[in-house]
Amino acid sequence: MMPSARARVHVFAHGRGRRYSRRVALTIWCNAKLPDGARRALEAGTRAHRLVVPEQGLVAASGEGVPDEGLATADVAFGQPEPTQLISSRARWVQLSSAGYNPYDRDDLRTAFVTRGAMLTKSSLVYDAPCAEHALAFMLAHERRLPDAMENQRAPRAWPQHALRASARRMGALTIALVGYGSIGRRLTAMLAPMGANVVGIRRRAGGDDPVPTFVWGTPAAAKALATADHVVDLLPGGPGTRHAFDAAVFASLKPGAIFVNIGRGSTVDQTALVAALASGQLAAAYLDVTDPEPLPPDHALWTTPNCFVSPHVAGGHADESERLVCHFLDNLSYFERGLPLLDRVY
Amino acid sequence: MMPSARARVHVFAHGRGRRYSRRVALTIWCNAKLPDGARRALEAGTRAHRLVVPEQGLVAASGEGVPDEGLATADVAFGQPEPTQLISSRARWVQLSSAGYNPYDRDDLRTAFVTRGAMLTKSSLVYDAPCAEHALAFMLAHERRLPDAMENQRAPRAWPQHALRASARRMGALTIALVGYGSIGRRLTAMLAPMGANVVGIRRRAGGDDPVPTFVWGTPAAAKALATADHVVDLLPGGPGTRHAFDAAVFASLKPGAIFVNIGRGSTVDQTALVAALASGQLAAAYLDVTDPEPLPPDHALWTTPNCFVSPHVAGGHADESERLVCHFLDNLSYFERGLPLLDRVY
Repeated sequence: MMPSARARVHVFAHGRGRRYSRRVALTIWCNAKLPDGARRALEAGTRAHRLVVPEQGLVAASGEGVPDEGLATADVAFGQPEPTQLISSRARWVQLSSAGYNPYDRDDLRTAFVTRGAMLTKSSLVYDAPCAEHALAFMLAHERRLPDAMENQRAPRAWPQHALRASARRMGALTIALVGYGSIGRRLTAMLAPMGANVVGIRRRAGGDDPVPTFVWGTPAAAKALATADHVVDLLPGGPGTRHAFDAAVFASLKPGAIFVNIGRGSTVDQTALVAALASGQLAAAYLDVTDPEPLPPDHALWTTPNCFVSPHVAGGHADESERLVCHFLDNLSYFERGLPLLDRVY
Repeated sequence: MMPSARARVHVFAHGRGRRYSRRVALTIWCNAKLPDGARRALEAGTRAHRLVVPEQGLVAASGEGVPDEGLATADVAFGQPEPTQLISSRARWVQLSSAGYNPYDRDDLRTAFVTRGAMLTKSSLVYDAPCAEHALAFMLAHERRLPDAMENQRAPRAWPQHALRASARRMGALTIALVGYGSIGRRLTAMLAPMGANVVGIRRRAGGDDPVPTFVWGTPAAAKALATADHVVDLLPGGPGTRHAFDAAVFASLKPGAIFVNIGRGSTVDQTALVAALASGQLAAAYLDVTDPEPLPPDHALWTTPNCFVSPHVAGGHADESERLVCHFLDNLSYFERGLPLLDRVY
């Protein structure tokens, strides 16, 4: 165990100073591709256990796992294990190294886990803040006219002060709809609060204790909320259930001149309809961190459509991402060892 | 009086329901150039008084006033009155239509006001949030690599996902130094809080109840704080006291690779030293909303220095700026009528 992670659990969960002396060595399988520092932290933090790293098949945080025979005997898996192989594995706990869990959102896998009392967790806590910051960067850049300023700097290097000031908007004057309201939405809500923005959430399922009014996607109330939003932020996950959620009809239903931001998944948008909505002015601008496909081919219309801005799936990324993924896993490992509830649980 | 402003004062200041019936008509002089809606709101809100608008000499919110004979007999002035003329005027209260008050920061004017019991107020409350939002837009754009993404979108339209993710930083991992810590700094502090950024303030004079640790400019403690900052945000006002506050020595004392943001005044920066600090890599990037001079000539080096970004003095501007300036003035007018403390008081 990393002393820091252990100490933290110790303080919060066992304030009286009692230490758990029992320690059953676990077989921990990890196929996450980690830079040296993060790998060393993982090794140090799992010293009491047996760490198994497949020789091949190391994958990026959000990559797709390939079958690996070491996984079959693991008690714990960390990374991106191949979903089908997980069904017949004996793993009691799997932590994904991504915030998304689309490939694992399957009935057969869920049933297998529930049946054998296994748990699936994700790494949302690592990615929530930098995802929310990316969305907010887009939103503020638009309202402070940064793309216009950068265009002016390229040429003609004029001083369009009055035009840009007059078209800039205070965030406190805007209504922001967050679609796919979950952990990133809650982070973004907290970041928008000091600016006084009016935030509403749209969810696929009814929520419980959301800090803003939320409406269920597809209902008249949600449509009404969407129609009043100055910014519509797509935070939806991928998968068949959200495919082309933003289609021509939805774009047509938005407030004329709305801003569309997507840090969810490219598949959630009918991109032909998006280009048309930008061309007609129904959307004033679109800021996309995700596209379909990725990489977006250099000749794709989204690159050249006016007022359409594309960042290459950067949201969530940050310099110390791998270290924080390991730290989050080790935190959860300390809870798992003690039978405490795990963070970021999916099922 | 606008009913809404009056009602608000009524509720907060006179909760027992007593109304002031005495109403002495004031002569209110205004040289602020207002669009129709804002002008109508000002006329409606000052109906109980005598509104005097000079035929010539209407100036933009931050413009420089010219002498006007109507000012001599005014009880109240709103806009940008000519400072020297104010000394011998009989105005008991002057509200500037700007956040800055540089031309009015003079001993002779201050003495004249104090002697005759007159007050000077400014419009910081109107501009604080959109100024802070502009600074934050710059900071987030940098950390989320938006300029790189926009450059890529122009050409080659590749997909530099890994490089941009690896160089993006969470705001929560950064130390931010706000130099010229005042009302904009406090707004920015509130906006940075949900991101977990470590914020320190640098002030010209010791402060009292700042929400972050603050240090006095020029002291070893301030130098130490500056040397640890990942982002240094210049919020300084103009004037002789801050001229070239950021010179070669200060840039050399910053953390190598620091980001410099300026939404204060261009005169506070030795721009030759700034260009050199960018060229050497001592500064990783600069985001400037203000320059010296303004407009910045098209052939000025700041436009073309790599990693130097210029917006044409847009911070603070917003679509409903004039309406909010009038609203803020009418709020203060209602306090003035009742002898209550004024908001945004300078002296």
